[in-house]
Amino acid sequence: VTKGEETRTAILDEALQLASTIGFTALTIGQLADKTGMSKSGLFAHFRSKEQLQLATLEHARSRFIDRVARPTLAVSRGEKRVHELFERWLDWETEALDGGCVFVSASSEYDDQPGPMRDALVRNQQDWLDMISTVAGTAVGEGDFRADLDPDQFAFELNALMMGYHHAGRLLRDRRALERTRSAFESLLASARA
Amino acid sequence: VTKGEETRTAILDEALQLASTIGFTALTIGQLADKTGMSKSGLFAHFRSKEQLQLATLEHARSRFIDRVARPTLAVSRGEKRVHELFERWLDWETEALDGGCVFVSASSEYDDQPGPMRDALVRNQQDWLDMISTVAGTAVGEGDFRADLDPDQFAFELNALMMGYHHAGRLLRDRRALERTRSAFESLLASARA
Repeated sequence: VTKGEETRTAILDEALQLASTIGFTALTIGQLADKTGMSKSGLFAHFRSKEQLQLATLEHARSRFIDRVARPTLAVSRGEKRVHELFERWLDWETEALDGGCVFVSASSEYDDQPGPMRDALVRNQQDWLDMISTVAGTAVGEGDFRADLDPDQFAFELNALMMGYHHAGRLLRDRRALERTRSAFESLLASARA
Repeated sequence: VTKGEETRTAILDEALQLASTIGFTALTIGQLADKTGMSKSGLFAHFRSKEQLQLATLEHARSRFIDRVARPTLAVSRGEKRVHELFERWLDWETEALDGGCVFVSASSEYDDQPGPMRDALVRNQQDWLDMISTVAGTAVGEGDFRADLDPDQFAFELNALMMGYHHAGRLLRDRRALERTRSAFESLLASARA
C-alpha cells in the first residue's frame, strides 16, 4: 500500500461517513474539502469530478460491506446459523459502521429515478446483495434447516424489506422498539421458513 | 376556492411530481420554475423560500394521500377486508399516483439524518401512517378476523417494511416480480395474523 493509496482510503472513509448522513447527491468535492480540511484542488487531483467521487465512494462502501458483512457471514457453517450471522452482521453494519446507517438504503431512494452510472452501480450492488441472501438461505435448505419448497428469492426479498423497515423505524422515527420489532419479524420469517 | 388557491394547488401538484422523482432536497424554486414555466419571482410570492416550498409540498402530499388512501380505506367495513383495502390503496398510491412512487419512502431516507422542520413534519406524518395501519389491523382483531393476541403495532411495522421493500424492488431494481413477491409476502403476513 503506497502513501497515495493510504491517503485515498482515508479520504474515502470520510466521504462514506458523509454520504451516509447527507446522501450521495449532496456529496461534493467542496463538502468533502470542508470535512477533511484538504484543498479542493488536492481532492480534484484524486477524483476529477463530483460523479467520480460519488462512484468511488459507493465502491468503497461495497468493499467495506464485503469485509464487515459478506466475508464473516460466509465464514460461518452453512445452514440457518449462517442466515443468523448474515442478519446480525447486517445489523452491525446498519447501526455501528456508519454515522447515518446503511448507505445502500439511502442511495436506493436517491437514485431510483435518476438514470446514470451511479444508479447502474447501485443496482448491480443491490442485486448482488439479494443474490447473496438468497444463496445463504439456499444453504439452509440444503442442510435441511429450511423446508425444501422454500423460495430463497422470496426469502431474500422479505428479509431485505425488513432491513429497510428497520432503517426507517430506527433512523427516521427513532423508535426505541425498532430493534425488538425487527428481531421479532426476523423470528417469524425464520419460523415460516423452517423445515 | 379562489383563483389564487387553484393556482397554488396546480403548482403544488407539479412540485409533488418533481419531488417524487428528484427528491425534496433537490426541489428548489428554480427547478419548479423550469418545470411549470412560471417566473421565479411569481413562485417566490407563493412560497417565500425553498424550505417553505418543501414543507408545502409535503403537506400537499399528505392531503393527496388522505384522499387517495386513508379515506377510501376507512369507507370499507371494519376487519380484514379493510386491511386488504389499505394495502391495495397504498399499492395504487405507490404505482399510479406519482411519477416516482411514494414520496414518503424517498423523503424518509433524505431526512432521517437532517434535523429541521422537514424532518419533524415527516416524522409526524409517518407516525400517523403507522398508527393508521395499526388501528385498521385492530379492527380486524375486534371483528374476530385476526387473532386476539395479535400486536397491531408489530403488524404495522411489518406491513410498512414490506411497502418499503416493494418500492426498492419495483423502483430501483425494476424487478418484474416485485408486485408478485409483495403480494405473496402480504398473504403470509395475513396468514400469520388470522384467528
